[in-house]
Amino acid sequence: RLSELLEPLHAADIADLIEQVSGHERREILRLWGRQIDGEILTEIDEGIREEVLASLPPEVLADAVRELDSDDVVDLIEDLEEPQQEAILGALDETDRAAVEKSLGYPEYSAGRLMQREVVTAPEHWTVGETIDFLRKAKWLPDQFYHVTLVDPGHHPVGNVTLGRILSAPRASKLIEICEEEFRKISAYQDEGDVAYAFNQYHLISAPVVDEDDRLVGVITIDDAMSVLDEEHEEDILRLAGVGDESAISDTVLETVRQRLPWLFINLLTAILASAVISIFEGTIQQLVALAVLMPIVASMGGNAGTQTLTVAVRALATRDLTDSNVWRVVRRETIVGLLNGLAFAVVMGAVAAFWFSGAQLGIVIGLAMVINLVVAALSGILIPLALEKLGADPALASGTFVTTMTDVVGFFAFLGLASVVLL
Amino acid sequence: RLSELLEPLHAADIADLIEQVSGHERREILRLWGRQIDGEILTEIDEGIREEVLASLPPEVLADAVRELDSDDVVDLIEDLEEPQQEAILGALDETDRAAVEKSLGYPEYSAGRLMQREVVTAPEHWTVGETIDFLRKAKWLPDQFYHVTLVDPGHHPVGNVTLGRILSAPRASKLIEICEEEFRKISAYQDEGDVAYAFNQYHLISAPVVDEDDRLVGVITIDDAMSVLDEEHEEDILRLAGVGDESAISDTVLETVRQRLPWLFINLLTAILASAVISIFEGTIQQLVALAVLMPIVASMGGNAGTQTLTVAVRALATRDLTDSNVWRVVRRETIVGLLNGLAFAVVMGAVAAFWFSGAQLGIVIGLAMVINLVVAALSGILIPLALEKLGADPALASGTFVTTMTDVVGFFAFLGLASVVLL
Ligand SMILES: [Mg+2]
Ligand SMILES: [Mg+2]
Ligand SMILES: [Mg+2]
Ligand SMILES: [Mg+2]
Ligand SMILES: [Mg+2]
Ligand SMILES: [Mg+2]
Ligand SMILES: [Mg+2]
Ligand SMILES: [Mg+2]
Ligand SMILES: [Mg+2]
Ligand SMILES: [Mg+2]
Ligand SMILES: [Mg+2]
Ligand SMILES: [Mg+2]
Ligand SMILES: [Mg+2]
Repeated sequence: RLSELLEPLHAADIADLIEQVSGHERREILRLWGRQIDGEILTEIDEGIREEVLASLPPEVLADAVRELDSDDVVDLIEDLEEPQQEAILGALDETDRAAVEKSLGYPEYSAGRLMQREVVTAPEHWTVGETIDFLRKAKWLPDQFYHVTLVDPGHHPVGNVTLGRILSAPRASKLIEICEEEFRKISAYQDEGDVAYAFNQYHLISAPVVDEDDRLVGVITIDDAMSVLDEEHEEDILRLAGVGDESAISDTVLETVRQRLPWLFINLLTAILASAVISIFEGTIQQLVALAVLMPIVASMGGNAGTQTLTVAVRALATRDLTDSNVWRVVRRETIVGLLNGLAFAVVMGAVAAFWFSGAQLGIVIGLAMVINLVVAALSGILIPLALEKLGADPALASGTFVTTMTDVVGFFAFLGLASVVLL
Repeated sequence: RLSELLEPLHAADIADLIEQVSGHERREILRLWGRQIDGEILTEIDEGIREEVLASLPPEVLADAVRELDSDDVVDLIEDLEEPQQEAILGALDETDRAAVEKSLGYPEYSAGRLMQREVVTAPEHWTVGETIDFLRKAKWLPDQFYHVTLVDPGHHPVGNVTLGRILSAPRASKLIEICEEEFRKISAYQDEGDVAYAFNQYHLISAPVVDEDDRLVGVITIDDAMSVLDEEHEEDILRLAGVGDESAISDTVLETVRQRLPWLFINLLTAILASAVISIFEGTIQQLVALAVLMPIVASMGGNAGTQTLTVAVRALATRDLTDSNVWRVVRRETIVGLLNGLAFAVVMGAVAAFWFSGAQLGIVIGLAMVINLVVAALSGILIPLALEKLGADPALASGTFVTTMTDVVGFFAFLGLASVVLL
């Protein structure tokens, strides 16, 4: 019955199903149906439960599953496993496949070298279309999917890419070198995978050759894998902005989830206590005018929201390379002016509300002034903090949220209560 | 000099440059260099300034630029233009191209029909590899990039996809129908573009045929365009979560930026005033114990952060289809228990801090209780609000942030101050 249910599904959907059921159901499925699992399903399974799934499979099932995979998928499958499990899988591969996977694993984590597949279709640069077709027809193995024939010189340096469409539509006598794509981009095996995904998206690449430090061809990256990386980079950014561990997955247990979220909440607690310490300086002032306690969260909240707006735009623009050295000061200036204008608008609105609510024009002026100050601070910290983190080599998505809201809370309370103690008392 | 600078750049990089310079510089570049702009650059330019750029070009430059584009790129270029500008560009196309573009424009905005290109390479289902290659060699036009030959029956219904790699490696006598891809997915022209991007990413599609309501082939979508949509959907989510208009772009002026952000800040002001109204109920209590004013932002802030964590995970899981009917209750339960555990942990920590700070054990108990209540409410609203919005057909990314923080502010202040007024006074 389980087989009937799963058989018609795509590997990626089966993997999703295995991720979405409860831990108990998952163990049942793997016990009853595990022998029919194939390599493609394994590569689609989320890292959070992959180890558990792999451990549950009989060694010969696992060996069969990985033997059918391209080298990039084997690398993806085993790179996060412990040494002995890794060895067991590598041992199931034949000599060339194993060497291909080990070569990839030799490159740093999150590099193009890890993302590439070693199976590349190449041709000498002097070949004609006819020779290429004859070669392909006789080839013993070919990758399941490939989009270019890469031309290499005698030193195995890639010199051009020919799309299959052009090979199919050109006369047999045409030289490959003459029907190369105009644009030719090589990727260094050491390049960060995020940069690779950016390049594929920016330049509409379909597949691109990967070269080692001597500019020799070592593999190829295809767009489907670049698209997955783009998706993961987004996930990382959005989860980091929210202070959620970026390993978070739908299959996580309660304890894993607590372990991911508690640290960020703890940091937030420290910054919240800092803000409270600022308030406590003005205990006497609040005692004399309780309206201040009622109104003070408004100033802080508006600052936090405005800061988050600017911050998010900045983090996104850094990720998409829209914020560069050439326009950074113009964007900083724009954000500051926007902060000032929004601050003035809400100063008027909130000043009027406060003056009316607590029948005090001076109170209205104080909250208005504090609002302007805090929204300008929000804008400045919203743009400068992510920029500073980026310059320092940190991920701007990771900690800026906490820094920015700490700034806006502290400045918001200090400006409002401080001005109140000077002006009103 | 400008030409020397821009000539070697890829169209996408030139477009980025035009977006990143100031409005003044942009007009200068277009004035001096505009005649050399080509269609590819135009399609890469962000919608925010596209109209301005198009308007600045002499009609004949524009006409030349669009004539070289595939139909999907023309559609993307003109779909957001005003009627007269649209007509001018359509008029520059020859009859078939114009008909292709108009057919696409007939499908709803953000549908697969808008995303597809009409130029498809098809073959009758009974053809052999040899016939196909001969046909391709003689073909008068072929798309610049294509990855499949789509087999169609006499009624022009697509029946299978053959990769170019298989055509190149199979003997001339092979029948196309026998070397089709095992997986064959058609896309309805009415499908939402976000779903299309999801399908490409999930099923590792490279190109997929698009069919109309009668299952007839009307176009093809390629992965590079699906990748752009995936990227845009992410941008939309991240900007919406932060309460920033999702049209926001690096080239926006101060006024455009203010116009995008002010509405959300205004909504936040209303909810902040609502929270203040809750505080004002307890003015008397605060008057008697100013420590409450010092501590109350901590409870609200922790709730806001915990709620945002849950909310972000929920929004992301809905976007990636990891949160489905089959696991929704398990995830709701997990989030609630996580909220409870985090609440208990911070109740102990913050209870101790408060008791020590203001030398009052009872105050510690009150803030601890309020913390537990607020973090459970944060978890519940963080998951239930986006789910409810999704069920109602709204975008869960769009308004959940405001709802969730309103809940945690109101509940946080009410629980803490209410408990304090009962227990402490
Ligand atoms: Mg999946
Ligand atoms: Mg793969
Ligand atoms: Mg990996
Ligand atoms: Mg691959
Ligand atoms: Mg990464
Ligand atoms: Mg990143
Ligand atoms: Mg807040
Ligand atoms: Mg761009
Ligand atoms: Mg395009
Ligand atoms: Mg569009
Ligand atoms: Mg296209
Ligand atoms: Mg959309
Ligand atoms: Mg969306």
